[in-house]
Amino acid sequence: MGEYCLTYKDVEEAVERIKPAAHVTPIMTSKTMDGLAGRELFFKCELFQKCGAFKFRGAYNALSKLVDNVEDRSGIKVVTYSSGNFGQALGLIARMKKIQAFVVMQNNTSQSKISAVEGYGAKVVFCEPGEKAKEAMKNKVAEEQDAIYISTSQNPDIIAGAGTLGIEILNQVPDLDAIVAPVSGGGMLAGICIAAKHIKPDIKIFAAEPLNADDCAKSFAAKKRIPLPDVPDTIADGLRASVGPNTWPIIKDNVEDVITVTEEQIVQAIKLMLERMKICVEPSACVAVAAVLSDKFKALPSSIKRVGIILSGGNLDLSKLSTWLR
Amino acid sequence: MGEYCLTYKDVEEAVERIKPAAHVTPIMTSKTMDGLAGRELFFKCELFQKCGAFKFRGAYNALSKLVDNVEDRSGIKVVTYSSGNFGQALGLIARMKKIQAFVVMQNNTSQSKISAVEGYGAKVVFCEPGEKAKEAMKNKVAEEQDAIYISTSQNPDIIAGAGTLGIEILNQVPDLDAIVAPVSGGGMLAGICIAAKHIKPDIKIFAAEPLNADDCAKSFAAKKRIPLPDVPDTIADGLRASVGPNTWPIIKDNVEDVITVTEEQIVQAIKLMLERMKICVEPSACVAVAAVLSDKFKALPSSIKRVGIILSGGNLDLSKLSTWLR
Repeated sequence: MGEYCLTYKDVEEAVERIKPAAHVTPIMTSKTMDGLAGRELFFKCELFQKCGAFKFRGAYNALSKLVDNVEDRSGIKVVTYSSGNFGQALGLIARMKKIQAFVVMQNNTSQSKISAVEGYGAKVVFCEPGEKAKEAMKNKVAEEQDAIYISTSQNPDIIAGAGTLGIEILNQVPDLDAIVAPVSGGGMLAGICIAAKHIKPDIKIFAAEPLNADDCAKSFAAKKRIPLPDVPDTIADGLRASVGPNTWPIIKDNVEDVITVTEEQIVQAIKLMLERMKICVEPSACVAVAAVLSDKFKALPSSIKRVGIILSGGNLDLSKLSTWLR
Repeated sequence: MGEYCLTYKDVEEAVERIKPAAHVTPIMTSKTMDGLAGRELFFKCELFQKCGAFKFRGAYNALSKLVDNVEDRSGIKVVTYSSGNFGQALGLIARMKKIQAFVVMQNNTSQSKISAVEGYGAKVVFCEPGEKAKEAMKNKVAEEQDAIYISTSQNPDIIAGAGTLGIEILNQVPDLDAIVAPVSGGGMLAGICIAAKHIKPDIKIFAAEPLNADDCAKSFAAKKRIPLPDVPDTIADGLRASVGPNTWPIIKDNVEDVITVTEEQIVQAIKLMLERMKICVEPSACVAVAAVLSDKFKALPSSIKRVGIILSGGNLDLSKLSTWLR
């Protein structure tokens, strides 16, 4: 695995690094959900993580590595691009570590997400929607502020931090046959691959993706990385990015299959999580739930009995939730 | 305490009786909520109980006591009146115990609650809204079917079952200064009083009630039981009943105060639970959250540091939730 940007040891080190700050999130189960899926499901509740999403793990690992041994941190600045969750986590941790964070966000981001990022003390810089505009603005801030760019999904320390999820879920449920995780830039999915495949080489890892943002599925079928041409239209607002150059080799080699779901399936999963499990799961995480309930997943061999599902976050706009529930 | 309809021993026995079937529900905490309340809060998550509400405890205790030693159960029938949660629990447990349950429900109950009760195998019988109509229909079913009436809040075995919550929360958080629980018929509140005051005589128990259904507050002020004259208009649909003759003496002697909250405060609490804690808490349970965030509660002495809040259930109509979130 020398060709990857991180190793299992990096994930092990991340476990130690985040231990004082991150929650060990609980596993939830539901007989009703098991019945609907035809399998035993184990929901890894990262919606209960600090800042309401798994992003805290990677951000804490990366910033700790960056500054923990630096005495005078007054001049240290970091910049990232985020649709919301990563910006919140980076903002909070930058405040904890006494450094300055800049978060580039699209100018059409919902006010609640902007306020949340600002509430944690980060400075929000707006850009036009789209990959090019965000790249340009992120580079501009990095240059003008002399800020270190922390990629939400391609930075190896971020991937290692997210990978702690793989170690943690297998500590909690050692005999899983499979793990299903949503994919966007692929940081979490790649981190889980590195961790889980090391611990349990025969475990099967599945990626879950909105059909409306299916670059990973298309890349997987073509056996080469094909980023999305435009900003995709999906309610799973955390999954609008494309798999990147650092995560693709790991995903290509270690993921069993990519399962795509429609917007309607995502909404149904949100409702099921509220109604049956009494938890508020964001659309991007519900993509993994919808994948496990899909016909494609149901057609998989019955030897895949015990399935871990990464509920990656719980941050959503209540006014939008109101619309989806209607 | 000889004048009460149950003793601490009854609650202790209920703990043993429900142990094989009920969940020990988790305690959740939130720094954000602590900040809003100005105290340390411990949320007892009965929304994760079987059937999504604490009602499972009492129903399981009562039916176990009734039939566990009976070999031929073919003729045993039970009847209750329920706005939803108790009906679901009774239906499920009747099926587990192989007896027949009848549940009287108002003919304006939402279809989702009716379906849930029927889904567990209970037979639903409809009545007009209001105390008199439900009493009459419940008596009619009891007579015609030769069914045993199980009151949702006044049956001592139901109260003892709910009281297990008091033992459980003090096992999980022994140094609580206070417990806040919603009140309707008062079964849960009375059970918690019997249990918690026995274990920790100086603990303070507060009742939380919708202002629109404030019979307990009025009774408490008048020092005599004053049932509601009509069916009250509150979104907390589990709290529309009045404190009954068995629960009133216990509440009168052991409760510190009754805190009422407006419909607007209940909706705000629902939103906070979704947004900040990522859990779907039904309005009746959010009444307790709203009470702890109220000015009246904030004015209490700062010696009340650590407060347990009973999140009694998580069953709600998603279409109604959509309306509340708008």
